Amino acid sequence: MTHVIGIDLGGTKTAAGVVSADGSVLFTAQTPTLNRAGGEAILEATAGLVGGLRERAAAAGIEVSAVGMGSAGVIDADRGVVVSATDAILGWAGTRITTGLQTRLGLPAGAVSVVNDVHAHAIGEAWLGAGAGSSSMLLLAFGTGVGGSFVVGGRPLLGHRYAGGHVGHFASSYAVAADGTKLACTCGRRGHVEAIASGPALHALYLRRGGDPDAVDTREVLARAGAGEAVALGAVDTAARAAGEAIGGLANVLDPELVVVSGGLADAGALWWDRMTLAAAEELMPPLAGLRIERARLGNTAAIVGAAALVLRA
Amino acid sequence: MTHVIGIDLGGTKTAAGVVSADGSVLFTAQTPTLNRAGGEAILEATAGLVGGLRERAAAAGIEVSAVGMGSAGVIDADRGVVVSATDAILGWAGTRITTGLQTRLGLPAGAVSVVNDVHAHAIGEAWLGAGAGSSSMLLLAFGTGVGGSFVVGGRPLLGHRYAGGHVGHFASSYAVAADGTKLACTCGRRGHVEAIASGPALHALYLRRGGDPDAVDTREVLARAGAGEAVALGAVDTAARAAGEAIGGLANVLDPELVVVSGGLADAGALWWDRMTLAAAEELMPPLAGLRIERARLGNTAAIVGAAALVLRA
Repeated sequence: MTHVIGIDLGGTKTAAGVVSADGSVLFTAQTPTLNRAGGEAILEATAGLVGGLRERAAAAGIEVSAVGMGSAGVIDADRGVVVSATDAILGWAGTRITTGLQTRLGLPAGAVSVVNDVHAHAIGEAWLGAGAGSSSMLLLAFGTGVGGSFVVGGRPLLGHRYAGGHVGHFASSYAVAADGTKLACTCGRRGHVEAIASGPALHALYLRRGGDPDAVDTREVLARAGAGEAVALGAVDTAARAAGEAIGGLANVLDPELVVVSGGLADAGALWWDRMTLAAAEELMPPLAGLRIERARLGNTAAIVGAAALVLRA
Repeated sequence: MTHVIGIDLGGTKTAAGVVSADGSVLFTAQTPTLNRAGGEAILEATAGLVGGLRERAAAAGIEVSAVGMGSAGVIDADRGVVVSATDAILGWAGTRITTGLQTRLGLPAGAVSVVNDVHAHAIGEAWLGAGAGSSSMLLLAFGTGVGGSFVVGGRPLLGHRYAGGHVGHFASSYAVAADGTKLACTCGRRGHVEAIASGPALHALYLRRGGDPDAVDTREVLARAGAGEAVALGAVDTAARAAGEAIGGLANVLDPELVVVSGGLADAGALWWDRMTLAAAEELMPPLAGLRIERARLGNTAAIVGAAALVLRA
């Protein structure tokens, strides 16, 4: 039976697991991402992580034949190279992941595959999570940012520049300040979904509306909303509606079989979730009425499983 | 050499042409769509149109082996059936197009193929028009409505309910009335792109802003804008910016190689076009900077050629 290793490389940590052909995660390990040390050092540490897992697998009589990775950044999945990355991982842009790992691990060409981490997450959910058995799935993640992936027939639409899936960067009717100007977005543009529907945007909105400055982060705003604080409830309401508007609008354009929602806000409970689904339903055209919107199911292992699928189901 | 017939069936007229394997349109014909007579009568008239073209082709020694159609409505392209259609074509919903035409034309199963007309239009532009040679193309048409199609590897993304491509039905920051409420959209929802960026929406905006009621249609508003009338210029400015915002936002999500824009507003000249491209550029994330936005090139034959491609390039 074939086994591979799936890797989820993020800005702060790198997690990996030995995955069987049916998607079961047998062994896991993680290490801090050496996000100040440059691409080669990160590859070296990643190869070490994989080596340790291979040894544990070998001790159990399991041979690992290939490695799939989901990585932060814009990833050229065809050449296996990091097109661009933020300063969260210094020196990652330009890194040749597939050849770098193949060489270090003594694996043949074709045995290592890499894709952006949100796409890996979506591949995992589409294979064995909330989207299992679907022909197409739109995933949106609302957390530190707003990202996503449209998976059709098990494959994410990567885009011509491997930039597809930036579902947080189109207009939101809610991304407007009290004075009528459009809110600044992390991408440098204005008025986008991410500027109102991400976790940090929810926190900023709460503070702009006169919320208690002692509420230091999004989690605290959500807790206060749960306790019935009016300003916090209002901010959660706006951010959740913005998320729903974005989900419903994209569903009208793409017509996925279902939508899967993940990220810290999706996990925050009914306050956010119920407002989000209501707003999404209000956007949907008649052919989309009743569209399933489900919470992601695989949690942190989604990207590991999805990365493994790159080489298990190629 | 293979020849087929491509059909473009719209709410008012049905146009068809004999198309060669390289996409040349050799003979054309058209007939009013029997939009009050029901599905079977429309199929009968369409078969008559095809029959006439086959005779003309035969007289030139050309045999027609297959028929492709682009049709108004939501079309189940796999079963060849009209899922739903507006009252613009009474009785069209439920019509079995492929079997109905195969039987009437004496063609074997598989020789007739059908897709929604906007998708056909996009397939044509992606094959031989503004998107020729591209790996992916996002088409948006701004006319009576706002429609579109995302073509990847020559194939449009049809969607799970065959409703994909409704690019006019997501939020626009411009679809807001003077009192702050969201504008009603033709789909029954509020605040969508089509509610501000379609031709009729541009005309309605002009009238709401105190424009001359003697300006009876969008064409007249565009003419007045061209002559420098301030209210008309302002309305064109808003509608064009709304179009550009939508184009840029969807490009961020889908990352197409290029965007192709068609429809009456795209053909209206620099007043609309220049404002649209400016607004689109203002939406784009850094990886999309410099994205090509081109005007559609094939005009009315795009859907005929695209429909022909369904059976020529299957």
